[in-house]
Amino acid sequence: MMRIDIISAVPALLDGPLNHSIVKRAVDKELVKIHVHDLRDYTEDKHKKIDDYPYGGEPGMVLTPQPIFSCIEKLQSERDYDELIFTAPDGDVFEQPDANALSLKKNIIILCGHYKGVDQRVRDELITKEFSIGDYVLSGGELPAMVITDAVVRLLPGVLGDAGSALNDSFQDGLLEGPVYTRPAEFKGMKVPDVLLSGDHKKVAEWKQEQSEKRTKERRKDLYEKFKKEH
Amino acid sequence: MMRIDIISAVPALLDGPLNHSIVKRAVDKELVKIHVHDLRDYTEDKHKKIDDYPYGGEPGMVLTPQPIFSCIEKLQSERDYDELIFTAPDGDVFEQPDANALSLKKNIIILCGHYKGVDQRVRDELITKEFSIGDYVLSGGELPAMVITDAVVRLLPGVLGDAGSALNDSFQDGLLEGPVYTRPAEFKGMKVPDVLLSGDHKKVAEWKQEQSEKRTKERRKDLYEKFKKEH
Repeated sequence: MMRIDIISAVPALLDGPLNHSIVKRAVDKELVKIHVHDLRDYTEDKHKKIDDYPYGGEPGMVLTPQPIFSCIEKLQSERDYDELIFTAPDGDVFEQPDANALSLKKNIIILCGHYKGVDQRVRDELITKEFSIGDYVLSGGELPAMVITDAVVRLLPGVLGDAGSALNDSFQDGLLEGPVYTRPAEFKGMKVPDVLLSGDHKKVAEWKQEQSEKRTKERRKDLYEKFKKEH
Repeated sequence: MMRIDIISAVPALLDGPLNHSIVKRAVDKELVKIHVHDLRDYTEDKHKKIDDYPYGGEPGMVLTPQPIFSCIEKLQSERDYDELIFTAPDGDVFEQPDANALSLKKNIIILCGHYKGVDQRVRDELITKEFSIGDYVLSGGELPAMVITDAVVRLLPGVLGDAGSALNDSFQDGLLEGPVYTRPAEFKGMKVPDVLLSGDHKKVAEWKQEQSEKRTKERRKDLYEKFKKEH
């Protein structure tokens, strides 16, 4: 069973996303183990401090190396880890193939950045993979850690109710998904496209592929050009 | 004061991120109002259903239009909204300039996608802006809604302790931030770079700029080329 250890300075941030929805269901079904570690439990500082001012007079606070080293060294003494991930805006851009690859690993650690970042020595010595979830800045690495966890866990066999559901996701075939419709067939005068009510599976499949390519072409030229090259 | 209304099928997912850290602090300081709406409170279905099977026989469930229309129409009858955002993997890629722009708005709604998506008629009729936080698929739009909220709220005046802190973030000047270090100056034999301990402000600033350009060049050729063109 896959095991994910998440190390955070503000573990309470992880409560909602970890204790509801698909991630919780996967934990309950024993398809994944998730352990959250509070950095404050590992500090040797007598005031329980885990951060300090950065050298060089920048504003913001930086996580100190000692609690992180202590926590990770303890975990590594208990089992082998395949990947030690740090979430940071300057990491490699996290994309669907990264989620696919991580979903095949056995044990991973995710260290959440916080405040102004972590001491560079942690990154140099311990981290094997740095991921950014997008080109924007957040107040901490907890949301990125949750994003990575969610993207990975939903791919684990048995987590999604219907095995087909993950396979025709946006990005898995290099295209965005087209529009979806559900009941009622007419709502406030707005109708579902006739083809979807036709019962003609071949036509439906063609329409979906067409819509998917159209949406990708309109919204994401970059993905569309890559798709066209490969097909 | 800015107001953000978040509409979700699983509002419990939003608990941790909204009730801790910077977003909570901003709410407590009355710098932003955040209201969460449970879609189930708006359904007219007698079984409280808010989703249904998609037309065309795809796997997964789709949020039905009625509860979403009812919730948004109620909110719109109470005040004007500048932007009605839907989070979806096929939306425009959310980046730092989008966070900057949203932080200047007064009232925004964020509708969280869930399961296989929402009925396209909701997107056609109500939504003014669709955002994807990255090229990966998640089990719902709650994490993206939290990401957008966090990225925006931390930019509001008064939210970050030190006004300088948001300005020298990665992406704000088109470059990634370089390495940061904090105490102790030596840890497990690993030393902080001498220049940071020198007290020479000019040299420190030069070193930081150099490191920032170096990291961007190594890790994000795309950003670096854009930066070079503009400077």
